[in-house]
Amino acid sequence: MSLEWEQVTVAAADPAALGTWWKDALGWVVVDDSHPDVFEIRPSEDEVPGLLFLRVLDAKAAKNRLHFDFRPVDHDDEVARLLELGATRIDIGQGDVSWAVLADPEGNEFCVLSSGTP
Amino acid sequence: MSLEWEQVTVAAADPAALGTWWKDALGWVVVDDSHPDVFEIRPSEDEVPGLLFLRVLDAKAAKNRLHFDFRPVDHDDEVARLLELGATRIDIGQGDVSWAVLADPEGNEFCVLSSGTP
Repeated sequence: MSLEWEQVTVAAADPAALGTWWKDALGWVVVDDSHPDVFEIRPSEDEVPGLLFLRVLDAKAAKNRLHFDFRPVDHDDEVARLLELGATRIDIGQGDVSWAVLADPEGNEFCVLSSGTP
Repeated sequence: MSLEWEQVTVAAADPAALGTWWKDALGWVVVDDSHPDVFEIRPSEDEVPGLLFLRVLDAKAAKNRLHFDFRPVDHDDEVARLLELGATRIDIGQGDVSWAVLADPEGNEFCVLSSGTP
């Protein structure tokens, strides 16, 4: 058995715009922007898994079944930074929890967990 | 800026069953099965990102906006192994491509790419 997790592919209305947003949000690097329908970022050039943004025509219609969770060194600082960058706070019925539920510019839900290490 | 990608959370009707399936598919380890609504796996105990399966009541209704892509050493061997394990081949209109499009036991789409390195 030998499967390496290369990436999560993210359906996007605008792959370059959404991929650039995530590059800035995570401090990652662009590894492929050679085609307008594809935009690929990684933590560093040879580090996987990365994120591959792929153009699709159908719009997001429901809460995603898969979402990203990120662990910050400082929760409040990172949430403030992401909101400034264009993320939005969303209510998916999470109630009073230790993590923040945000959405990226195309509405993909993700969480910023409590401060600490994974 | 300091965000570590801790996991992808996967909505699941049966977190333990689906998480165990992915553990076996990837050869990963279980890091949390202490609650029936949560099942967490990682490549190894301290390696992230991992996968967190979380019980949800709503059923999968559409093609996922996010999906996993894995790079195999030997494409045909890995696809055969995953089908044997209970994955299914699906047609999402991909046409004649170098990767295999499969679904896990709860219907989450994922791809096995061509043989090689990421």
